Amino acid sequence: MKVLGVDPGLTRCGVGVVDGAPGRPLRMLGVGVVRTPAEAEIGQRLLLIEQGLERWLDEHRPDLVAVERVFAQHNVRTVMGTAQASAVAMLCATRRGIPVTLHTPSEVKAAVTGSGRADKAQVTTMVTRLLRLDAPPKPADAADALALAICHIWRGGATDRIAAALAKAPTARREHLR
Amino acid sequence: MKVLGVDPGLTRCGVGVVDGAPGRPLRMLGVGVVRTPAEAEIGQRLLLIEQGLERWLDEHRPDLVAVERVFAQHNVRTVMGTAQASAVAMLCATRRGIPVTLHTPSEVKAAVTGSGRADKAQVTTMVTRLLRLDAPPKPADAADALALAICHIWRGGATDRIAAALAKAPTARREHLR
Repeated sequence: MKVLGVDPGLTRCGVGVVDGAPGRPLRMLGVGVVRTPAEAEIGQRLLLIEQGLERWLDEHRPDLVAVERVFAQHNVRTVMGTAQASAVAMLCATRRGIPVTLHTPSEVKAAVTGSGRADKAQVTTMVTRLLRLDAPPKPADAADALALAICHIWRGGATDRIAAALAKAPTARREHLR
Repeated sequence: MKVLGVDPGLTRCGVGVVDGAPGRPLRMLGVGVVRTPAEAEIGQRLLLIEQGLERWLDEHRPDLVAVERVFAQHNVRTVMGTAQASAVAMLCATRRGIPVTLHTPSEVKAAVTGSGRADKAQVTTMVTRLLRLDAPPKPADAADALALAICHIWRGGATDRIAAALAKAPTARREHLR
């Protein structure tokens, strides 16, 4: 399974592609960042993100896109841009019929380090180790995107089963859990 | 000037098209709502919004798209969806080279009622009056989209001049003001 992980952001949108399956070695196929200038109009920035992500989708044709789930309680200043960048990522994937899964930051940290409260350095160390890289992935802020992809490969099935169960649950409860 | 107003939302995305110029009568060219089912996947919902907005853009070919500016301090539960729907609207317009302007809810209320603290009924009454409609626009939740379009027609120039001035201001100050 080939997964494109997207760590959404307006200024820097981390992207990482990992190939693998549970119980088998992981392989990094690509890593990078889609950047947009802070001084550009918001519509223009979203368009640049769309164009950047389209290039990644064209090149790697992933089976699935894993996007970091954005929470409103984070930094109010940046959360709107993050939500908007994640919308573009989900839209690009869905438009191509590629399934999208969302993973929370703590799910991602727990998947690669064993702890949902791991720090950034720990995540980078484990991503480097798990992908058997000679050096930490560059740019550094793209390590999270690779971690997202790894997280999906390892726990994607479980998340999907939970999602399927929730889809059958009453709406109020489902919204609460989401 | 033909303006498409978009009141963004994941469940209901209000859309209204108004033609006019400062000092000249306004004319409503269309009003409606793009709806998406709450039980659908988020990616699917964003795609439905994109497809719905594309139809409006195809049909009306507006000169400008006015989108309600989303604030993070609003209802935490719905604000993420609103931010994501607004991202789709800004993306669709920018992709076609159509300029996008953002207006705050209080700018919109002040434009059509004279008060930034007007309630929903007052906005609907004034939208009905200003567009010389026989009855309040239906669906009711699309009145805000028409108000957004009217707001832009009346104060668009001013907002654009402010934006241009801010674009020249130092970054920190610009972010503070935005």
